[in-house]
This record gives sequence, C-alpha cells and structure tokens, in this order.
Amino acid sequence: MDEIVQKAGVLVEALPYIKKFRGKEVLIKYGGAAMDDENNRLNVLQDLVFMNYVGIKPILIHGGGPAITAALKIAGVESKFIDGLRVTDQTTIEVVVDTLGEINKNIVHDLNHLGARAIGLGHGNEILIVKKLSKPADVGFVGEVIDVNTKPIKEITDYGIIPVIYTIGLDEQGQLYNVNADEAAAKIAGAVGVQKMIVLTNVRGVLRNGQNPASLISSCSAEEINTMIKSGTIAGGMIPKVKACVTALNTGVRKAHIIDGRMPHSLLLEIFTDKGIGTEITP
Amino acid sequence: MDEIVQKAGVLVEALPYIKKFRGKEVLIKYGGAAMDDENNRLNVLQDLVFMNYVGIKPILIHGGGPAITAALKIAGVESKFIDGLRVTDQTTIEVVVDTLGEINKNIVHDLNHLGARAIGLGHGNEILIVKKLSKPADVGFVGEVIDVNTKPIKEITDYGIIPVIYTIGLDEQGQLYNVNADEAAAKIAGAVGVQKMIVLTNVRGVLRNGQNPASLISSCSAEEINTMIKSGTIAGGMIPKVKACVTALNTGVRKAHIIDGRMPHSLLLEIFTDKGIGTEITP
Amino acid sequence: MDEIVQKAGVLVEALPYIKKFRGKEVLIKYGGAAMDDENNRLNVLQDLVFMNYVGIKPILIHGGGPAITAALKIAGVESKFIDGLRVTDQTTIEVVVDTLGEINKNIVHDLNHLGARAIGLGHGNEILIVKKLSKPADVGFVGEVIDVNTKPIKEITDYGIIPVIYTIGLDEQGQLYNVNADEAAAKIAGAVGVQKMIVLTNVRGVLRNGQNPASLISSCSAEEINTMIKSGTIAGGMIPKVKACVTALNTGVRKAHIIDGRMPHSLLLEIFTDKGIGTEITP
Amino acid sequence: MDEIVQKAGVLVEALPYIKKFRGKEVLIKYGGAAMDDENNRLNVLQDLVFMNYVGIKPILIHGGGPAITAALKIAGVESKFIDGLRVTDQTTIEVVVDTLGEINKNIVHDLNHLGARAIGLGHGNEILIVKKLSKPADVGFVGEVIDVNTKPIKEITDYGIIPVIYTIGLDEQGQLYNVNADEAAAKIAGAVGVQKMIVLTNVRGVLRNGQNPASLISSCSAEEINTMIKSGTIAGGMIPKVKACVTALNTGVRKAHIIDGRMPHSLLLEIFTDKGIGTEITP
Amino acid sequence: MDEIVQKAGVLVEALPYIKKFRGKEVLIKYGGAAMDDENNRLNVLQDLVFMNYVGIKPILIHGGGPAITAALKIAGVESKFIDGLRVTDQTTIEVVVDTLGEINKNIVHDLNHLGARAIGLGHGNEILIVKKLSKPADVGFVGEVIDVNTKPIKEITDYGIIPVIYTIGLDEQGQLYNVNADEAAAKIAGAVGVQKMIVLTNVRGVLRNGQNPASLISSCSAEEINTMIKSGTIAGGMIPKVKACVTALNTGVRKAHIIDGRMPHSLLLEIFTDKGIGTEITP
Amino acid sequence: MDEIVQKAGVLVEALPYIKKFRGKEVLIKYGGAAMDDENNRLNVLQDLVFMNYVGIKPILIHGGGPAITAALKIAGVESKFIDGLRVTDQTTIEVVVDTLGEINKNIVHDLNHLGARAIGLGHGNEILIVKKLSKPADVGFVGEVIDVNTKPIKEITDYGIIPVIYTIGLDEQGQLYNVNADEAAAKIAGAVGVQKMIVLTNVRGVLRNGQNPASLISSCSAEEINTMIKSGTIAGGMIPKVKACVTALNTGVRKAHIIDGRMPHSLLLEIFTDKGIGTEITP
Repeated sequence: MDEIVQKAGVLVEALPYIKKFRGKEVLIKYGGAAMDDENNRLNVLQDLVFMNYVGIKPILIHGGGPAITAALKIAGVESKFIDGLRVTDQTTIEVVVDTLGEINKNIVHDLNHLGARAIGLGHGNEILIVKKLSKPADVGFVGEVIDVNTKPIKEITDYGIIPVIYTIGLDEQGQLYNVNADEAAAKIAGAVGVQKMIVLTNVRGVLRNGQNPASLISSCSAEEINTMIKSGTIAGGMIPKVKACVTALNTGVRKAHIIDGRMPHSLLLEIFTDKGIGTEITP
Repeated sequence: MDEIVQKAGVLVEALPYIKKFRGKEVLIKYGGAAMDDENNRLNVLQDLVFMNYVGIKPILIHGGGPAITAALKIAGVESKFIDGLRVTDQTTIEVVVDTLGEINKNIVHDLNHLGARAIGLGHGNEILIVKKLSKPADVGFVGEVIDVNTKPIKEITDYGIIPVIYTIGLDEQGQLYNVNADEAAAKIAGAVGVQKMIVLTNVRGVLRNGQNPASLISSCSAEEINTMIKSGTIAGGMIPKVKACVTALNTGVRKAHIIDGRMPHSLLLEIFTDKGIGTEITP
Repeated sequence: MDEIVQKAGVLVEALPYIKKFRGKEVLIKYGGAAMDDENNRLNVLQDLVFMNYVGIKPILIHGGGPAITAALKIAGVESKFIDGLRVTDQTTIEVVVDTLGEINKNIVHDLNHLGARAIGLGHGNEILIVKKLSKPADVGFVGEVIDVNTKPIKEITDYGIIPVIYTIGLDEQGQLYNVNADEAAAKIAGAVGVQKMIVLTNVRGVLRNGQNPASLISSCSAEEINTMIKSGTIAGGMIPKVKACVTALNTGVRKAHIIDGRMPHSLLLEIFTDKGIGTEITP
Repeated sequence: MDEIVQKAGVLVEALPYIKKFRGKEVLIKYGGAAMDDENNRLNVLQDLVFMNYVGIKPILIHGGGPAITAALKIAGVESKFIDGLRVTDQTTIEVVVDTLGEINKNIVHDLNHLGARAIGLGHGNEILIVKKLSKPADVGFVGEVIDVNTKPIKEITDYGIIPVIYTIGLDEQGQLYNVNADEAAAKIAGAVGVQKMIVLTNVRGVLRNGQNPASLISSCSAEEINTMIKSGTIAGGMIPKVKACVTALNTGVRKAHIIDGRMPHSLLLEIFTDKGIGTEITP
Repeated sequence: MDEIVQKAGVLVEALPYIKKFRGKEVLIKYGGAAMDDENNRLNVLQDLVFMNYVGIKPILIHGGGPAITAALKIAGVESKFIDGLRVTDQTTIEVVVDTLGEINKNIVHDLNHLGARAIGLGHGNEILIVKKLSKPADVGFVGEVIDVNTKPIKEITDYGIIPVIYTIGLDEQGQLYNVNADEAAAKIAGAVGVQKMIVLTNVRGVLRNGQNPASLISSCSAEEINTMIKSGTIAGGMIPKVKACVTALNTGVRKAHIIDGRMPHSLLLEIFTDKGIGTEITP
Repeated sequence: MDEIVQKAGVLVEALPYIKKFRGKEVLIKYGGAAMDDENNRLNVLQDLVFMNYVGIKPILIHGGGPAITAALKIAGVESKFIDGLRVTDQTTIEVVVDTLGEINKNIVHDLNHLGARAIGLGHGNEILIVKKLSKPADVGFVGEVIDVNTKPIKEITDYGIIPVIYTIGLDEQGQLYNVNADEAAAKIAGAVGVQKMIVLTNVRGVLRNGQNPASLISSCSAEEINTMIKSGTIAGGMIPKVKACVTALNTGVRKAHIIDGRMPHSLLLEIFTDKGIGTEITP
C-alpha cells in the first residue's frame, strides 16, 4: 500500500509542469535510429499519449531513417550522394513517399490504439510548400520549405488530436519533393508558434567532446551554437539538428531541446523536470 | 464550354439529396471482394470524401475478406470451419487483428490524403463489447456483440471526421474476439441511430433468381426478407448480409441497402438518386 | 444507368476544387442587370447554396441596379447625376434604403428556402462606416468607406451561414449614406481577407476590344489593369469594377475575377475549373 | 439624474426574471390583428430582441391574418368556408404561401436590423410534416401536423439566433398545405419542449363573460379550459387558441399564456412580472 | 536519474485508468472530519486538480461538518436533535448557509489557485428543489430533495470546470432548507448520471466488525448492504452513507465507493488502481 | 399597470446600448472606499450581473483598500511608507495576499449567487508577471508589471464567465509582489484590448476645483490630463487613477472613465447613457 501511495504522489508532483504546458503546442521531431527499437518506439508513443491526455498539444514530425535506405535497396535504386544530399530522381521520391506513408500509418494507428486521437498529415494535405533546392547542388527532387500551411495542423490540435506529419513537400505545380525532416520540423515549429521544439536523437545531446558522453552541454544559447559549429565542436550529423533548433528559435520558438530518444520516457522527463535532460538551446 | 456548363448543372442537381442527408450519419459496410480491385477501392474512398465534404457523416465499417485468408496461409495457420464459422484460436485471432489493422491503416491514410479527415477505430478504442459465441458451435475467439460504445464514434463524426472501424471486439477480461463484420455493422448502425446503412457487396443486390442479375429486387420489407430466407430464395453468403440489414432496421435504422460495390461510385448513386440502385430494405 | 454513373463522376471531379476552397471566404459581388432575369437569379443562388454545402464560405454583396431607378420613378424623385454620381437627397436615400432592403429580404428568404442558411446584413448592423464623399463633387448622402466592421460577417460565416449584405453605410452621427456596391465589396473583401472576390456582371469580362466578346482577356495583373484604364482600353461602367478589384488585391485578396453572371452557374464554373471563365486579375 | 438612476434600477429589477428564463426556449405565436398596427408590431419585435439579448431563446410562429384575405381578393380568388375552414385549392395555397413568405421576410429583416439575429424558416426547411385534413370536412390543401422536424429550430436557437416560422406544411409527396398557425405553434412547442408558449391576441385573455374585459380569468388549468369550452363560456375565435394551449400543455410545455398583443411590450410584461397579464393556463 | 525515469514510468502506468474515465463525470462527496486536517484537505484538492487535468469531470459535493457546530455555538444557537436530525429554525438555517458558503468559497478559491478551474454552486443556483421533511419528525427547515436542476452542473463540467456544490435546497416559495449532504450527493449523482460516486469519510470503509479495521469489506452489492443494515453489521453514522450509495446505484450510477479521506491521495488511488481501496458497492 | 408598462419601456430603451457593447470586453477597476458600503457593493455586483446577462464581457479588477490596513494592524505589522509606497516585507506581502484572496472569494461567491458565473484569478493563475519596483525607492516586494498573461482571462470571458482578478504578481522566480491595482488594471486593459476601462472611485470624477463637485470635467483628452497633472489641477490620490487611464488609452483602449462608485448603479448608467457620468478620458 505504501508503494501505491508513493505512486499517487508522483502523479501529483507532475501538476506544476502540466499546468505550465497545457493548452500549448510542443513539437517533437522523431526520426532515424530512435525509431528502430520497438521498446523505445512504444515509450515515445506512450509519452505522446500522456501529453495529449493532460491537455498538452504535441505535434509529431517524423522522418524515415534506415527504413528508406532499406526500401530503396529492395526497389533496386542505387543511393548516390552529392554534398551529403541524396540524389533524388522520380523513382527515388516515389519510394521515399511510400516508405514515409507506411511509417506514418503505423504511428497514427498505434497512437489511436493507445487511446489518444491522431491524424496523419502528409503531401495530400499540402502542409509544406517548397521550391527545388539548388544549393549546394541540384540533386533532383529535394526541396527547400518556402511556406507552411498551418491551418490543418492547428485545427487538429484544437480538437485535441495529435497531428503526425511526414515531410514531403509540394511545389506550385504539385510535384513532390523530399524535405529534410529537421528543417521541416523547424519551419513548422516557427510557423505554428510552438512553445517548445524537442529533437529526439540517438545521442545524449550536444557534447563538448564528441567522444565523451560526460561532456554533455546542458544549456547554451543559439549564438553559442553558431560559435561551436564554426570551431568544429559540433560536427557531422549533429549540425543539421542544431541548425534546425536555431532556425526555430529565430522564428519565435521559446526553447529547443536535443535529447536522447533511447532513454525510456525521455520526452516526459524533458517536460516534467525543471533541469531537463539533453541539451537545451535558448534564443 | 457547353459540356462544362452541363457539369456545373450536375453539381446543382445534387442539392436536394445533399440537403436531405447533411448532418446525418450514414453507415457503410465495406468488405470482401469489393476491396480487392484498386480502382473500385479508390472510387469508394472518393465517394466517402465527397459525402464528408457535403456535410454527410459517413461511418465506415470494414472487414478483411481475402486478405485474412492470405495472411493465415502465410502464417501457416490451417483454416478450419465448423458450421460456416472459422475456428479461431489465439494464433488465428492475432493474425486477424494484424491484418485488419493493416487494412484499416491504409484506408485511413488514403482518406486523409484525398483531403477528408479520417480516424481509425478498433479494439484499442473498445467499441465492441462481446461475449464468446456459443451457438451454433464453440469455435474459439469468435464473439457476439452485446454492447456498442458509441461515444468515440459520435465525437469523431461531430468533428466532421470519418470513423473507419474494424470489427474486433473485447470481452470484460480484455480478450480479443473476431466479430462478423456484417453483424457488427448492424449493431453499430442501430446503436448510433444512423439514417441509412449501406452494405457494399460484389453482387447487384438481392436477386429473385440467384442465377439471373435481371431478377434484382429493388425494394422489399424486412418481413419479405424473412419469408425469402425461409423459402430459400435468399441463400448462401447473402443470408448474413440481409440478416444484418433486418437487425439494423429492427433497432431504428430507417433504411438498409445492399448494393454492388464494383459499380463505379455506387455509393454516390445510392445517395443521390431517388430510385437508388441495388436492393433497398425497409422496416 | 451509364449517364447516371457519369453524373456521379462529375461530383467526384469537383473534389480537388472543393478541397482547395473549403473553409475559406469567397466574396461575390452581385448586382445590376445580372439580377433581373429570374432564371439567372436562381442559378446564382443555387451556386451559393452549393458552395455553402461543400464548406466554402460565400459572402454576398448586392446592389440594387434597375430596381432603384424604378423605385425612384414611382416615388416621383427625379434622377440627377453629377460626374456620374447620383445626387442623393434625404428622400432619395430613403428610397434607396427601402429598395435595397426589399431585394435583400428576397435573397435571404430564397437562400433559406433552397436549404442554405442566410442572414441579411445592412445599415442596422453597422458594417460600413463612411464619411461624406466630397470628390469629385458633393452629391449629398453618398459615402466613402472609411472602416469596415467585420465582426458580424465573420461570426456568421463561422456558423456556416451566408451573410447577404447591402451597401448602405453610416457616419459617426448615424446618418445613412449610399455607397457604391463595387467599392464596398472591395473594402469588405480586403477587411475580411477573403481568398477570392468575384464580380458578377452582364458582360463576358474585360475585353481588349469593347465591341468584340472574342477579345476577352483571360488573365492580367493589377498593373496591367491600370495601364489599360489610362490607355482607354477599359472604359465606362467597367472602370469602377476593375478599380474595385485592384483595391481588393491591394489589401491582401489573392485573386479577383470579373465574370458573366448571365451564363448559367458561372460562379461554380469559376470555382470548379482551373482555367476559369471571364477575366482573372492577380496582384 | 434621479430619473436616470431609477431607470438603472428597473434594469436590475429584471435580473431574477432573466435568470429564470435565460437559456430556455419560449415560443411566441403572433398573428392576425396584433400584426396590423405598425407601432404594436415594433413593440413586439423589440421585445423579442430584448429577450434574445438577455439569453432567452424566443421562437416566433406567425400567421398571415388579414393580409391573406387581402391578397386573395387581389388575386381574384373567392373565399369559401366549410365548417369554418377556408376551402384551399392550388391557387389559394400559392397565394397563402407567397403572402406568408412576404410577412416572414419582413419580420426577419426587421429583427436583424434591430440588432438581433433572425432566420426565416418555412416549407423550404421542412419543419411541418402534415397529412390532408379530412375532418370535419375535406377543404383541399389544409393539413394536420403529424410530425415536426425540430432540428433546424434547435440548431438556430443554439446559435443565439431567433427562428421566425410560418406554418406551411408538406406531405410525403412534397405537396404544400396550409396549417392553422395556433395548432402548428402548439405542435412545435411540444416537440421542441419549450418552457412557455405565449399566444399574442387582440383581446385581453380568456374572459368569464365575453362582453366584459373586467371578467378576465388570470389563471386556470387545462381541465378548467375544457369545462369552459363545453359550457360555452369560451366560444368563437378563442376556442382554437385555448385548444392549442391545451395541446401544448399535454405534450410537456409547462405554461401557456393568452395575452393582449395590443398592449405595449406585453411580451416583456408577461416574462418580467410574477403576476403576469392575460390568462395563464397550467397543465 | 534512475529514480526520475521510474517516476516517468509511474505517469505512463496511469494511462489505462485515465483512458477509462476521461470525459466521464465522477462525483465526490467530501465532508466532516476529512476536511479538518489541512494536509488532507490539500491532498484531496490536488487529486481533484489532477483528475481535471487528465480530462475526468469531477463534481465535488461538500458538507460543513464540525464547522457548522462551531458556528452555531459562536452564534449562541443551542443544538437540539430529534431522531438524529438537527432542529433547524430560521436562525440555524442562516448560520448553516453562511458557514457552507464560507467553506465553498475557500475550496473554489484553492482549486483555482492550484491551476484548475472551479465554480461554486449553491442555493443561488437553484440546484436542489426540496420539500420539507416530515418524517421521522418535523424538525423545521430540513428538506428532502424532490428535484435536481442538473443544467448548471453539466454546463460547467462541459467547459472543463469543476463544480463545487454545497447542499442547501429551496422549496417552491424560495425558502431555504438544509439537506443532508450524503442524500444530496446521491440525488445529484443519479440525476447527472455520473460514472462513479465516491464518499470520502474518516473510516477505512464498511467494516464487518466495526471495531476492527482489518475486517474491511472490499466489495459488496447493494442488496448485501441492505442485509447488513438489517442485521446491524452496519450501524451509526455509516448508515446514511451506505444508503446514499444504494440510492445512487438505484438511479443508474455504476459504482459507489466509501473510502478513507485521511489516506493521502486516496481519491487518485481509488481511480488509478484496479483493486481500489475502501469499500466498493455495486448495483 | 401603467407604471409596469413604463418599466418595460425602460428595458427596451437600453437596447441600443446593449447592442453597442455586447460581445465586447469592459474592464472595471473597483476598489478602496467604494467597496466598504454593503449596499453599494451589492449595486456594483448587480450591475456586473446585468452586463453579463446582456452579453457584455465585464472583467473585474479589485484592490483591497481599507481591509488591508486593518489586516496588517491585526497581524501587528506596522505600516511604513516611502514616497507614498507601502514598505512591503515578506510578512506584509503574505497579509496582503491573504486579504485580497479573502475579498476575491467573497466577490466571486456573491456574483455566482446572484446568477452570473464568475471565476477568481490571482497569483495562482500567473496573470501578472512583474519585476521589483526600484523607483522611486526600493520598498520591498512591490512590483511593476512587465507582462500580462491574457489567456486565462480571454478563455473565461469567451465562456460568458466574469473573471474577478486581484493584483498580486510574480517574478520569474515565483516570488509574490504587491502591484498597484490601478496600474495592473491599465496593463490588463491594454493587453486584453478592452473596449472601455471604468475606474470606480469615491469621488464624482476629475474636478477642475478639487473642493467643488460642481466643477466636474465631463470629458477630456489624455493630453489634457497630462497638462492638468503638471499644473496641479489633478493632485493626490487622483493622480495614479488618471495615469492608469492614460496608460490604458496609450495601449489601444478606446475610452477610460473615472466615475463615482457610491452612486447607485453608476456602472449601468455609464454604459447605458450617451452622456455618461463622471469623467470620460479619450486618447
């Protein structure tokens, strides 16, 4: 009985945090390796359901990660990269769209079955208006976001439903383009005006020394991020993630977080702890 | 230009029918062979989107049909039948749930991408409360509907969203049961109090002479249906469908229809024609 | 049966256009000769009902046209014009208000009877705040719009009801003024932020050669309009209409259209065709 | 200043009565002679606006009275009566429909211009489903109400809008029928479940001695009404009015009132006085 | 960090219980000794806020307990009892109303300050319509509930606000009456149709042996309760509480619970445990 | 009867004023001596209920006035003032918070019992974000408003509920600060964008000659106010009140009024008279 009373106490401890965020949008970028492990995936989805139940309005943006590479392989499409960008011809974009659609359907289905309400949004809902990316190179159907249609997102969150969004954009002619999910998340976060943007990754956060998890930077400003990119402290795959955070902060988002999606319930911990986990980036 | 003016005329001709049904629930049972053909499937989904756009509240109930048999085969489960009911052990029910979930996800995803809003509902939403079917035989996890939880359905239709429901039920202990989709549709139709229930099949309707499509019965009463079952005029796979219609009519549904899902846009034709197509059954 | 299947097909063809405009305001300016013919009038009202049914939010602004001249004649008021503006004394404004009120009541009544919901708005609802027009001449109670009270309009469209507005304004002292319906439509369009403004006229659109309907200009920019006014290509009664379009475009409306109200269902054709009819003016 | 303070006091005195009725439907039957005098008409409409402003939900049912007789005369239709019922052929019903429509438009328009929101409802909205009256005589297109479609009425009152209803019914084939406005009011009152039904007449109420206004009966039960009809105390034109009240009371309406529509603001007096005016009939 | 992860786990464990009760009304009767201890009081209020945050609709009914006796003493009113009922003259009822009003204000204020929304409801909102209690004795202004006005309660819970109700009733003349809070809670529970009624007391529940807390009865039926009253197993102050539970169950409430309000967060434990605490009574 | 008809006339006379303000926010600052007299207090609350009933959205900001001085005296806290500001240590702020909370509870309770809906808002709802006041002197926990959280206020007024706000602010660390109620009212008025701000005082308004009530200034501009402060025409306790009005006008409020709260129903008189009472200040 004592243990059970303690558990009730934990619920009540969460009240001030719930109070702070209820009625507000929080955008979660979820992708790559963090989606591979089935246990982790369930943890993330449960966290979203809990947020939804207590009146927070989560918006989930997901990419495709390893599943896309696998699908292209099955389709016999050879993966070429120029300047780190995947060369994307018509066949490639079709495989990407199908794969993301498949992942989207599964997340939406699972959230609904866990008892929340979720609706999938993608290119059919014309959320992301893009133009062809021309720099650093023309790599085909890879787009840059020039406008975000926030109406379907806001209408859905106003109903208490979780929008689950995959990041395929359209240009004015209706051609589909692949869009970097971190960039898309940042643009959507800014356009919607979310309170917080949380990037779920498979590292502990921004590290002062990339080899050493103990060198985690708990909090830094957007300016410090830029300095660390120039100095090479931040490198590799972390660069697009922190850049997305800075983009979001520059368009009015109050805080951005890079946290470890592999830690059980890391999303709830981020929301329901003062200190937080991972790296917090402020404007 | 003349042709285009004629087309505008067609839109306006639909006004009285739209007026009649807007704001009202219409339940569509969709299953089996009618789901196999990709073109047909798209037609049905477009019809649902159109209904949704003009303010009618469609509720879609779907079964799994051939896909379940295929999935069981792949899973190496042998199909046994007693009195026409599939013997359903734990492995079988798991395959059925997975297959229906997969079909559900695809329909929901496609409706959203066609521009409507849809949400999938299944056992996770506890719509169908069942008890184990004991007659005509105990065939395992096959359930009989004893209660319908209409709250999630009504809340969703009130938001202008299409509920897409697959028919797995739960008993009081949370055990999952397969439920005949026709029966489930009838029970949901009655509990929600829909205006109309439409069963999409792969025949033209109820035939006076099973061999001859020209012998289609356009309209008959529930009582006549019972007579025709006894006399053997209605036989085989049509029996559960007409019985479902009669069940729905007995619980307050105003009209039930058995129509040919293979005819392009048969749903819209049923709604937007006085005469209708297929067989109409009245209380 | 085939013809009927084709008709269902037409409904479904409209889906992408419905999707594009649903939930958005479209302002229709309707007046003059286009209101005289009873058949045409019914066509226009049916089109509005259809738009309303599929979730588009039409706002109807109407003038009085020939009916006002007739009413003044009956009232024994002599019509004088200075610089093309009707000299409007107290008797004249009273006749104008009564006549517009009468037309308004009829449109509202007919829309309701066709199955839509409509509410009439006029000077009693204080939509148009005006000051006395002093240029090009003082012609009495003719006003220039200085402010638009959009609250009653938006509240009504949010309920799914069609606002039907006649264009009598008030100054700060509550004195009534006649307002040019094209100007009022433009100001309301801008203040509400409608997606599209459509001016129903009794010509095919803007003609390159006023004598020749075949010289219709399908699309042009606001700048080109200004050039054509200066060059005299646009003249006479078309000038206030195109100027109203330019005013609307300058205050944020995305597209303005001048179309032929005498063509059956021209409103639906404009909305449900890519190419459109009449003349489209872009910012 | 003192007078002005007293006036503020009057507003506050109304609070308990407002509190009692706000959020509740009150049906007002308005017709005949009470509509003839322009001053009286304005008083009644202002009272409705006041009720609407303080959150009461008035439903206005109106007849046509003298205007119909006048219109028939103009149309050259001879008025014949059998057993007190107007013989109603196709021409007659058309004149009646047009006249009621005209009256309806004017009331709706004036309520909107006084600052309330009103929507007209008539045969186009299919409120009254009727069958041909066969007793005491077949007099043509005169109907008896067999069903009331309350949905449009309730939806409108829920928006804070006043429904203004004229009493033309339809049979299943869509044929129009004239319906006695008192009867229609009673049937609508019962179907909607209004709190109060108020019949505005041009007499002071039910009189114990038809010649003497001082013999007004302030309050009586439905049973006493029946007795007084049998004894002949209630006679002539008062009979259908009291019968309508009894019908309403029998279907759940709590109180019915017959009051003098010629007294200024008699509606507000009825609502905002304990004692009331006219005759109150209780179940 | 580990402890913190465990805490997040506790939040997620609550999901199935939240899912079960969200959107449903739960009535809590809170009174007497359970309100005396400040810590306990805060626990109860926090539990209500948590329930409110996760979408459950709590309705709080409170009595006055010891505070009333104290207030009467201060006012110099001597307490007399006949058949266990307090003799309630005009002075007494005024003291009771004031005291309950004071308690009500404090609860409402504290709930709002804890971040929920609460509104106090009492005799001014005419929730409880009563008649004078005549049996077992006439003890003055003590009333028996004959009708419950649920409209203000439901409107408030629909807004996501917690109604906090004290149990003073009115008769038809507006005279105030004291009403037993357990009885009032039962009547309100039945009229509103709550999912659960929870009575917070200062004992562990219904005991088989009144002297021995270990003899707690975890679950029993309404019928067994009646038997235990007759046999004397249930006696004293527990009788009105169990009778209130039986009344509630007889009018459609699904489950009633008598639990120990002194145990920290006993409300959350009752809701978020399968086994529950205290005594559960089923229909 | 004649008198009663006149009373109904008064209700109808209020229509144009109701029409003008319904749906709009009006902020009332209520404090000090105006709260002391029980009759006056009831008048003010009734006026608020009337405003609420006719669809105006009042927002009540109250101070504590004499009650705070009394409470500090009882608590044995000595009142010290520097530059007219109360020196506020931790004990003082606690007494202030408790006293304001008590006053707030009573107003909320009484408004609810008069039949309106009211919700108290205070520091628990984090409306006023402040920083420590440093000029003209550091007097402890006295704050200056740097941000207003309008969300809880707007949500409540949108529900038709009256927010009743006391003016305790928080800094970023959660420390409580006393805030001048006039200043807080002005900041809230501007942030919410109210139509009107009314300051209830215990003088007739701004006087040209402080000794002579007959020298009341009916209307003046914000600029004139500043001139009168410099010239010493406005002095003493009136200065913070007029400054608050000017602050409100500078942030978009259309009109501010200083009126005599001791005059019965002065609030209704201000709203429902063209000429108004007290002093009106325009931008």
